[in-house]
Amino acid sequence: MGRVELSMALVASPPAMDAARPHPPDGEPPRAPIGDRLAAAVEARASQLVLGLDPDPARLWPGAADGAPTGGSPAQRAGAAVAAHCAAVIDAAGPACVAVKPQLACFERLGAPGWAALEHTVAHAHAGGLLVLADGKRGDVPVSAAAYAQALLTATPTPFGDVSGLGADLMTANPLLGQDALVALLEGARAAGAGVIALVRTSNPGAADVQDLDAGGAPLWERLAALVHRLGEPAPRSGLTDLGAVLGATNPQPLARAREIMPRAPFLLPGVGAQGGRVEDLAPAFAAGRAGGLVTASRSIAAAHEHHGGDPAPAARREAERLREAVWALSA
Amino acid sequence: MGRVELSMALVASPPAMDAARPHPPDGEPPRAPIGDRLAAAVEARASQLVLGLDPDPARLWPGAADGAPTGGSPAQRAGAAVAAHCAAVIDAAGPACVAVKPQLACFERLGAPGWAALEHTVAHAHAGGLLVLADGKRGDVPVSAAAYAQALLTATPTPFGDVSGLGADLMTANPLLGQDALVALLEGARAAGAGVIALVRTSNPGAADVQDLDAGGAPLWERLAALVHRLGEPAPRSGLTDLGAVLGATNPQPLARAREIMPRAPFLLPGVGAQGGRVEDLAPAFAAGRAGGLVTASRSIAAAHEHHGGDPAPAARREAERLREAVWALSA
Repeated sequence: MGRVELSMALVASPPAMDAARPHPPDGEPPRAPIGDRLAAAVEARASQLVLGLDPDPARLWPGAADGAPTGGSPAQRAGAAVAAHCAAVIDAAGPACVAVKPQLACFERLGAPGWAALEHTVAHAHAGGLLVLADGKRGDVPVSAAAYAQALLTATPTPFGDVSGLGADLMTANPLLGQDALVALLEGARAAGAGVIALVRTSNPGAADVQDLDAGGAPLWERLAALVHRLGEPAPRSGLTDLGAVLGATNPQPLARAREIMPRAPFLLPGVGAQGGRVEDLAPAFAAGRAGGLVTASRSIAAAHEHHGGDPAPAARREAERLREAVWALSA
Repeated sequence: MGRVELSMALVASPPAMDAARPHPPDGEPPRAPIGDRLAAAVEARASQLVLGLDPDPARLWPGAADGAPTGGSPAQRAGAAVAAHCAAVIDAAGPACVAVKPQLACFERLGAPGWAALEHTVAHAHAGGLLVLADGKRGDVPVSAAAYAQALLTATPTPFGDVSGLGADLMTANPLLGQDALVALLEGARAAGAGVIALVRTSNPGAADVQDLDAGGAPLWERLAALVHRLGEPAPRSGLTDLGAVLGATNPQPLARAREIMPRAPFLLPGVGAQGGRVEDLAPAFAAGRAGGLVTASRSIAAAHEHHGGDPAPAARREAERLREAVWALSA
């Protein structure tokens, strides 16, 4: 892939994206439960790889900035460049993946133009047949959690008509606020055939500070896992639940135990590659089927050319395909 | 306050707000640490009241929708109406408050126009002499946490120039990911004289599910409190730290114990009013000084007219003033 093409329409009027959104609030038939959609997508694409999109405006692919409007504010120009970068990464590595995972922080930091770039990225991924996991790790009291579900998964009624949210298929959530807060997210998700993936044991070194605390004879993360198991509803065909769990691949020891506690939850497995996690340690995730483990990689794909040389797009495609094959073989 | 005025410029070109932002990344002298800024603001305004802004597009004040552009998308029109509503609530109740607390979920659900409305709200509050607490309960692995600090508190370097974040003075955070994730937020905050307020014991019924679990002889929330105490840095004049704690006023029993564990942290106290918490139970917070307790109220102020009659603005002002007096008297 050479020079990155840029939709100028995005820059001038982000809300014009509304019409292109894949899940408008009205007139759309209800979707199947997310567990079945996920399982079908994994089979159809022969991939459990989730393409993480964490765009840093200072480290975009060559060409991404070329089409940014010269007259706009720094935020507008950076937002357009980030949208072009993400589209290029999706075009390059998406064919080896089942989903994309935009890191919301990386878009929010560009303000309204960043949110417009996020909407553009979601639409581009959906157009390529990919599921979208909005990675914002949201969590709040029930009334606010319901608003996050509207923002990321469904729509918001207003006097001017319904306003579509991001239209993601899945969102990450933080379970510290307990059952009522998670249920508020899940109710929104179920209305849209979408799902929630809750933090259980994360991939950062500090995870141990809180998640591994002894909580009555078991680490706290096992309590969170039990909450996830209790609240998730299995889909009729695949049996996969609509509430999944984040389990960092940097610390694979808990995976088998996590699968015991949550036999039907999809696991999101970050930390392979740049953070040091190894694919071969992830086997317990697939006891729930081929879609039971979703392996996410970001920098190791988008920055593959920095380590292996060559142009960014073919390097990203090669690294994504390498990961896809390794995970697919493990889950056979 | 009668008909709500609306800045049409907001609707047409949100990023034009950049110039009005209070804390541009370049050329601004460093601000004092947040603990001292907070203490000074509480004294100057004789208030510890934080005005929560949780705008529901279906329940805006009369007049807020009048100035919305007739030709825009539902999201653009709703965003403009929400911005007008928040400005009107700030004009009415702000004089009795020390800060505003926009609930980010309520803006995010309107997409890019919602984020533009959020920027407008922050600028309006700052122009009125109020501090701004961005309530998004963010928490992520360090690299992403740093991006959230850029989004809400500081700025992001891009090839097109620095992009200002929201310019909030404080942000709420979720501590489930442990010390390294909190430190990444704090480092961003300190660079801007801003602060972080971490969830310790929230106000929703489900809080007990996780935060009250026994964690080695003490409830989990006490462990979170100890982490907050360990990481916060006290300001030179007031002694208040730059890492505070959310402690729901609906469950006042832990307050005295929380103050023992965190002697210098500012406490954010939600749940008074609509959720049933009582002002008179909050006294232990003020052992750290008058700025040691920040009482937040949202619906009980913005919807005061629904309970007490009359026009929304004077009803909101009266309720805010009533709360301000009650808290100020308690902390004397």
